[in-house]
Amino acid sequence: MSTINIVAPGPHVITCKAAVAWGAGESMVMEQVEVSPPQAMEIRIQVVCTSLCRSDFTAWQFHAIFPRIFGHEASGIVESVGQGVTEFKEGDHVLTVFTGECMQCRQCTSGKSNVCEVLGLERRGVMHSDQKTRFSINGKPIYHYCAVSSFSEYTVVHSGCAVKVSPLAPLEKICLLSCGVAAGLGAAWNVADICEGSTVVIFGLGTLGLSVAQGAKLRGASRIIGVDTNPEKGEIAKAFGITEFLDPNDSNEPIQQVIKHITGGGADYSFECIGDTGMITTALQSCCDGWGLTVTLGVPKEKPEVTAHYGLFLNGRTLKGSLFGGWKPKSDLPSLVEKYMKKIDEFITHNIPFEDINKAFNLMRAGRCLRCVIHMPNAKATLVKE
Amino acid sequence: MSTINIVAPGPHVITCKAAVAWGAGESMVMEQVEVSPPQAMEIRIQVVCTSLCRSDFTAWQFHAIFPRIFGHEASGIVESVGQGVTEFKEGDHVLTVFTGECMQCRQCTSGKSNVCEVLGLERRGVMHSDQKTRFSINGKPIYHYCAVSSFSEYTVVHSGCAVKVSPLAPLEKICLLSCGVAAGLGAAWNVADICEGSTVVIFGLGTLGLSVAQGAKLRGASRIIGVDTNPEKGEIAKAFGITEFLDPNDSNEPIQQVIKHITGGGADYSFECIGDTGMITTALQSCCDGWGLTVTLGVPKEKPEVTAHYGLFLNGRTLKGSLFGGWKPKSDLPSLVEKYMKKIDEFITHNIPFEDINKAFNLMRAGRCLRCVIHMPNAKATLVKE
Repeated sequence: MSTINIVAPGPHVITCKAAVAWGAGESMVMEQVEVSPPQAMEIRIQVVCTSLCRSDFTAWQFHAIFPRIFGHEASGIVESVGQGVTEFKEGDHVLTVFTGECMQCRQCTSGKSNVCEVLGLERRGVMHSDQKTRFSINGKPIYHYCAVSSFSEYTVVHSGCAVKVSPLAPLEKICLLSCGVAAGLGAAWNVADICEGSTVVIFGLGTLGLSVAQGAKLRGASRIIGVDTNPEKGEIAKAFGITEFLDPNDSNEPIQQVIKHITGGGADYSFECIGDTGMITTALQSCCDGWGLTVTLGVPKEKPEVTAHYGLFLNGRTLKGSLFGGWKPKSDLPSLVEKYMKKIDEFITHNIPFEDINKAFNLMRAGRCLRCVIHMPNAKATLVKE
Repeated sequence: MSTINIVAPGPHVITCKAAVAWGAGESMVMEQVEVSPPQAMEIRIQVVCTSLCRSDFTAWQFHAIFPRIFGHEASGIVESVGQGVTEFKEGDHVLTVFTGECMQCRQCTSGKSNVCEVLGLERRGVMHSDQKTRFSINGKPIYHYCAVSSFSEYTVVHSGCAVKVSPLAPLEKICLLSCGVAAGLGAAWNVADICEGSTVVIFGLGTLGLSVAQGAKLRGASRIIGVDTNPEKGEIAKAFGITEFLDPNDSNEPIQQVIKHITGGGADYSFECIGDTGMITTALQSCCDGWGLTVTLGVPKEKPEVTAHYGLFLNGRTLKGSLFGGWKPKSDLPSLVEKYMKKIDEFITHNIPFEDINKAFNLMRAGRCLRCVIHMPNAKATLVKE
């Protein structure tokens, strides 16, 4: 590994390239942005690699906060630290996380939750501490996304929203464990706690759904049924442990009926990985009476209300949500990186230079990718060579 | 205990008194009904005591199947058995159950469910085996309720929908364990599995809600918050373990906000015991992020759809249903009766002779009772004297 070429060290404003979204669904524009020094308890990170996640895409298409720098699934190197930060120092390798861990609130100290009260999901495009941005162009604030904004050569995050990882871990791969792949594995392991020999149904075979499948396979599930309206997913999904593929368009019967039929009454577990609240109902209906568990992971584009007949619950079904797979970022992610870093390759379908970031959005729109890893130009030297 | 006076033994039609509901919300009429002999795998029971449960009341007000004999929470004595029945014999003391246990289906043999596939909730007013009734008046069929119909001196149930209990257990009390009290205790113990020191919120302080409170108290919950719009419940509820009482009408703030405020972010567990799907949403909102668990027990009168914002789940809440508190009737009820039969007294607010059954409906409509135990005239001699 080469040494890091720190472009602009120290607690001053950095000017660097960022992909700025100026409006919903509009192509990113590569702009020169000013990145403020980290405030108290914040760190500034030189982004090395960042991958495009479905929730970036959804927020870009549907949300109202612009101009904005998207990106939240990322690896990088600490460039400088704000006042009071003792956990990180310049040069540390880190993953960013969209939901942090303050380690002090009721949730963090409960031992049973990863939903930090202080550094939880920040949707307003600002930093947790002062509700302001650290990006600007000629003094005009540019909003953050999920308090990460990794589609920039440099970004500032709260120190609770980054996790130090081994310097031996390949940053160009483990960025996937910063969100999607970790979220899927955790949903299977931590939230559903899948049992050996069980039957699992997964709605939506993107990175999230396929990492649930991997997690289910590693737990010894005997049937892993994948459902997707893209028939090409059938072949791809096999490599991730899917044992049966169903395209809802192949049958006149509703998909939940097909699943009930082939499983003799419904699956043990179902996972909604699309981000469609209507599919949560279908997922509940695809589970068996008595002990059927539905886990919802997706972030819906529209219609945030889940609606389901009460009888589904009365007959023994359970509905649970999964935020980042139940992982506590600081407590759990370093060991997940160690254990899992060699198994990520098959999720990476494309490697793209930062300047071509719009290609990643086009590939996702066309359903032609799992993960596109976006490589930052000045960080190339930091990658571990294999 | 006196010996039983079998009015009409043997496998022939019995003519006896039953309280027949001829239309929705119309007073029961005491009629002479013919009760067929038990068919294969069925038993005919002389009802000793039966209590009025909220779901009888709701079905009587809203459901469309008439004429009908309601009642499903009951104790009795086996009068005769149908072909193939080896588990019961004439004279056995039994509780009826609205959801049976066939002991052979996928659910019954799973070891993790009480939602029997064969003898589950039967809402159509007929017997499981042949979809016909065992009651008639001059040849006109009279429909069952929940395959029990205990508002009759004699009834026929599937042998899987009755549980043999100790002849020493007081039949005039343990009928409450045939549904309501067992359902509440089981929701607290089996379904929610309440932890010591936790905070519990219960919506609706009828028998179901108060038995959840008792269950929570026995598990060592430190705060048990009861919510009811009837201010009289506040005092009554203390005896069952409620530590704080909230009447939603006492505050301008929505009740879920009040609960979030006084619990510092929401309860560990919430229970919907009203039978109002809208309150399931409120119960979810009254739980804390991270690990909040909402259990729904009530059977809604109208609007069977549960609607809730997906964010409630994404932030770590779980929604579970509870059918008969997760108890497997045959496997679990005999020991529950042994352990719990001395603790039922405080739920019995009224004892009423069968001919006054409409009083029980009036008391429930007015919210003036917990359980009204209805005593059958010819079965008086069978009661255990204390």
